Amino acid sequence: MPEHKAASRLRLSGLCFLLQILNILLFATFVRYSPESSSSLCSPQLNCSRRNQDSGFQHPRFRDVHIQVLLGFGLLVAFLGRYGPGSVAISILIVSFAIQWAILIQGFLYFFLNGKIYVGARSMVSADFCTAAVLISTGAVLGRVNPVQMLLLALLEVTLCTLNEYILLSLMGVSDSGRSLTVHTFGAYFGLMVSRILHQPHMDKRKREDQQNTGHQADVFAVVGTIYLWIFWPSFTSTTSVHDNAEPWAVLNTYFSLVASTIATFMLSPVLYEESTPRMVQIQDATLAGAAVMGMAGEMLVTPFGALITGFLAGLICPLGFRFFTPVLQSRLKIQDTCGVHNVHGLPGILGALLGVLLTLLATADAYGDRLELVFPLVAQGSRTAADQAVLQLCALPLTLLLATLGGCLTGAVLKIKALRSPPDKGNLENTVLLEVDKEGCDPRTSGKEPGISTLV
Amino acid sequence: MPEHKAASRLRLSGLCFLLQILNILLFATFVRYSPESSSSLCSPQLNCSRRNQDSGFQHPRFRDVHIQVLLGFGLLVAFLGRYGPGSVAISILIVSFAIQWAILIQGFLYFFLNGKIYVGARSMVSADFCTAAVLISTGAVLGRVNPVQMLLLALLEVTLCTLNEYILLSLMGVSDSGRSLTVHTFGAYFGLMVSRILHQPHMDKRKREDQQNTGHQADVFAVVGTIYLWIFWPSFTSTTSVHDNAEPWAVLNTYFSLVASTIATFMLSPVLYEESTPRMVQIQDATLAGAAVMGMAGEMLVTPFGALITGFLAGLICPLGFRFFTPVLQSRLKIQDTCGVHNVHGLPGILGALLGVLLTLLATADAYGDRLELVFPLVAQGSRTAADQAVLQLCALPLTLLLATLGGCLTGAVLKIKALRSPPDKGNLENTVLLEVDKEGCDPRTSGKEPGISTLV
Amino acid sequence: MPEHKAASRLRLSGLCFLLQILNILLFATFVRYSPESSSSLCSPQLNCSRRNQDSGFQHPRFRDVHIQVLLGFGLLVAFLGRYGPGSVAISILIVSFAIQWAILIQGFLYFFLNGKIYVGARSMVSADFCTAAVLISTGAVLGRVNPVQMLLLALLEVTLCTLNEYILLSLMGVSDSGRSLTVHTFGAYFGLMVSRILHQPHMDKRKREDQQNTGHQADVFAVVGTIYLWIFWPSFTSTTSVHDNAEPWAVLNTYFSLVASTIATFMLSPVLYEESTPRMVQIQDATLAGAAVMGMAGEMLVTPFGALITGFLAGLICPLGFRFFTPVLQSRLKIQDTCGVHNVHGLPGILGALLGVLLTLLATADAYGDRLELVFPLVAQGSRTAADQAVLQLCALPLTLLLATLGGCLTGAVLKIKALRSPPDKGNLENTVLLEVDKEGCDPRTSGKEPGISTLV
Repeated sequence: MPEHKAASRLRLSGLCFLLQILNILLFATFVRYSPESSSSLCSPQLNCSRRNQDSGFQHPRFRDVHIQVLLGFGLLVAFLGRYGPGSVAISILIVSFAIQWAILIQGFLYFFLNGKIYVGARSMVSADFCTAAVLISTGAVLGRVNPVQMLLLALLEVTLCTLNEYILLSLMGVSDSGRSLTVHTFGAYFGLMVSRILHQPHMDKRKREDQQNTGHQADVFAVVGTIYLWIFWPSFTSTTSVHDNAEPWAVLNTYFSLVASTIATFMLSPVLYEESTPRMVQIQDATLAGAAVMGMAGEMLVTPFGALITGFLAGLICPLGFRFFTPVLQSRLKIQDTCGVHNVHGLPGILGALLGVLLTLLATADAYGDRLELVFPLVAQGSRTAADQAVLQLCALPLTLLLATLGGCLTGAVLKIKALRSPPDKGNLENTVLLEVDKEGCDPRTSGKEPGISTLV
Repeated sequence: MPEHKAASRLRLSGLCFLLQILNILLFATFVRYSPESSSSLCSPQLNCSRRNQDSGFQHPRFRDVHIQVLLGFGLLVAFLGRYGPGSVAISILIVSFAIQWAILIQGFLYFFLNGKIYVGARSMVSADFCTAAVLISTGAVLGRVNPVQMLLLALLEVTLCTLNEYILLSLMGVSDSGRSLTVHTFGAYFGLMVSRILHQPHMDKRKREDQQNTGHQADVFAVVGTIYLWIFWPSFTSTTSVHDNAEPWAVLNTYFSLVASTIATFMLSPVLYEESTPRMVQIQDATLAGAAVMGMAGEMLVTPFGALITGFLAGLICPLGFRFFTPVLQSRLKIQDTCGVHNVHGLPGILGALLGVLLTLLATADAYGDRLELVFPLVAQGSRTAADQAVLQLCALPLTLLLATLGGCLTGAVLKIKALRSPPDKGNLENTVLLEVDKEGCDPRTSGKEPGISTLV
Repeated sequence: MPEHKAASRLRLSGLCFLLQILNILLFATFVRYSPESSSSLCSPQLNCSRRNQDSGFQHPRFRDVHIQVLLGFGLLVAFLGRYGPGSVAISILIVSFAIQWAILIQGFLYFFLNGKIYVGARSMVSADFCTAAVLISTGAVLGRVNPVQMLLLALLEVTLCTLNEYILLSLMGVSDSGRSLTVHTFGAYFGLMVSRILHQPHMDKRKREDQQNTGHQADVFAVVGTIYLWIFWPSFTSTTSVHDNAEPWAVLNTYFSLVASTIATFMLSPVLYEESTPRMVQIQDATLAGAAVMGMAGEMLVTPFGALITGFLAGLICPLGFRFFTPVLQSRLKIQDTCGVHNVHGLPGILGALLGVLLTLLATADAYGDRLELVFPLVAQGSRTAADQAVLQLCALPLTLLLATLGGCLTGAVLKIKALRSPPDKGNLENTVLLEVDKEGCDPRTSGKEPGISTLV
């Protein structure tokens, strides 16, 4: 038994070593800093104003690099609401690896120039987007895969997510600034399919009771996570809207959407559950949903009340999904969704995409004014009508779902390989994970005191 | 009994529904995005530099929109120090509603233009200011009103707070950039009056003992809250100082004030209490007080040591108020102050206002230089002498107190309506709230383990 | 006994009072706001663009003032991982005092102009740097000195740290933008020497067992601390790289270094310890190490993989130091390192400095381009060859170590003064601190419930 644990431990550490060395070698071979970031000092005239725009265009991105990572951790904290520090360690490992890997993969697709990948703030940000998708998928299988499997999941998903992003944004010219499709929808359904493939009957009931009783430790994390998301998500959705004077609407729309979805949760949860006020975890889920739905439509909405209505719907969908849809997923479809990413990211992502299609259809030059060339450059240039754009936006949805499900199946199949599952040994790893979970008070019998230590006493 | 709970739950969810639908309808009718945020792309000459100034003038505001909400939550976290996640859920509900409502009410007063309210970053920020005032008032009655009452309190206070702000800032031309008066003072005394009206004898002693024993869970929240406030409050006080080159002093002054008030607390608390070092909650209160006192005077102070002295005084007032003033409030005036908003916001707000009057009196063109037209535009334009300005600043204080107390009485009277109190049912609601409080370990007998669950075992 | 406690309490509060009054008087005499921050409104032409650059050059600094303080608290939170809120209160006291003191001391050295110290954002930032060094030293002696001693430690260290910084940066023209030497190395070895002088045999074993069992409360703080550091440290290392277009590389390098060091920890800790995944505290230490190593080299590295390799090494050094070096320090050298600052700041700081020397040696005009005059102004001006610069950078390391050790001995000798130690009374103070620690669950027997209260029951 102990040598099993030792073996698994060493397998993890060995894999980390290999991957990091691989990354370093690839970086040494291909990755350089983009000259843009060492641009010459500006001369007082036009050149300078250009530089101002550039730096004004870089700096938000730099902040968003951190904010993005923060958001990554915001998602972690969202998981923490259910899975405590035990899950953070693994998630930080995934973030650390996925960011490097995403820079490489995306570099080959986007920034590859005469044999070198030129990274800068922009590539960091898109790498962070990819990492966010991986974290979302992680939320679906959390607690049922060991770290080694997690790393392989990140390895594969980053590749596929980048491919999907490349097809949608570059080839089809879909406008998805807040990544409703490429991050939220893709990440959610990818994770759900992996979870489906890794399904094991005997696990479910233990999990399901874990779902029910989350200790008060959880609430603390949920509070912190909610605050993080409220502060930083609006700038997340507006990260890639390049020009400063287009940014406001995306921020304000996201903001209104958050507000409305929160109130919707307060409206619905007393009806669905026996509590007079929703738990913090539910409020956090509503915040996530309200922001996910604004991903694509964020910079398209031209009126505030549209954001209020959309956020309100997202706030209704999320708890309804938890109440009625998650059980169906578990019992009928044998898909187990640890952190409810389907309700928090999947459904709102789809809703946001459909809303984006609708808004694209209604997009007119006089309604958007100068913003048209920012939101729909191709339409503004007249190389494409608003209807064509809308059709493409619509096609992007099934395409993303297809890629996500196929990729999820593939990845799940890989993760089922016996050498990775390592059956005799997996049980231990799992227990260690679950033990950490219990330590966090998710289990009522041990909440507030540490089992490992109480046994010592 | 259960049907009582059901009734109250449904009343809350119904009220949320009605208010949100009302907001959506009013937004659909009146609110539009201000064209400023979709300004035309700039031509390389002057026009462009104008745009730069604009965006430089918008962007801090956008960040402050989040920071403000953060501050809102910072205040929540300040409450958390005493009332745990149970109070956050309700507070987030209030924030979500109050922001929308404030945008509407303020829109009708400020931004109403040919039948439409044009919102942008600026209106969001002033809406956040209003929300902060509501949160402060909430701190005075926390734990003794049910969510339905909270929502109505927000509904009324936002209206009155906006009215007060309109009279002071627009009609009287009072300069109160950091909102010592319109947010801190108004919110504190409004909440205290509501608390006075809702006073119930049998409640007090139970509360008072709650005050004494705050678990170590509380300290965790207090630490996080203090860090939040230290980071973001300096930019809060300098939010509305428009031009970039006036901002620094407000930030630095607030910063010095925080530092001095913290040290003052360390100096005083060993004398007042039996502990060698103050509890984190006390340090957090000192931080709040040190920032509240800088609200009006923040951008007026022209020397750092003035900020040090003011912060030092605020740091002395706050613990003294808790030690000697709060008991008097409770026993004599029958005003119960759950989170001590009177010491943390009320007294420092008044002190800050008086300091502002003094500084206005001393304001001279050569001391301020170009800043004069930023801090006292009317004085700089010569349409008003510094003395007149000082008199107006002074008159603003009693006026704010008057409006706050009257509004508080009115609101308290409304909240006392039997249908809202719903006597048989209120007990339950309260218990649920208190239960959540106990879960957070405010009650020593249950700290560290969950009563609800321990009963199950 | 009680009168002993009373005496010590009053000594602390009296010292706070004296120091604050002293600060206020010195500020009143010397400190004024720098006129730069009230520069005249800009005319539309060149002058205006200059102003834009200025404000673009001030504003990051202002944000970094807060971020710095945040970082200060980030360090606190890092300590919290081991020492809970009990340590935060004291640390906040130190921050509050050290910032004022640093502004004064640095003002006399740097910003002293015809009898006045002109403070602005820049001086605030360098004051924050100094405070960070004090906090690092605090980490070495935490839990074994009383608040009064802490204040005196800050008083002395700020002075010596500023002196060291002045010699390195101003006299020798060493380029150390992220303060690998002047903050991390100096702070670590200063604290270690103080800890050596204050060594008491009977303390060690109790401490050592404290080291072993850190409750799950610790993990919560470690999670929050890690997130803080990930978000804000990259901007910390790039604070003083003045021009916007030089900043990116420092940020990105730090970022890559964080990522690599995190993975290195995951690789090593399963080998060193019996756990499959490292504890959050270890991950946090790796984050700190990965950022500390980038201090000097951050803006010198011209390729990303260099940052990856360096971070990877730092991530290996840190856990190895904890595993093998800290025990040696404790047993052989009688140096007790409460929070392991030697592994987290000392060794990575030295490694970073050596790397900086190497990079300086390799610095060529064509590799750096315009950045050369930002990173090595003297070399760019031709007044000094890259080799000379490298030699000076190298000499800076032993000089810093010498000043730190001498200063540490001196300070430790001062803190040993009987009046400060106050032997009969010290025990109590210590217990109160330890009690607070126990409350945080660092002691298994009391974790999860409060001893003080459980005795009541």
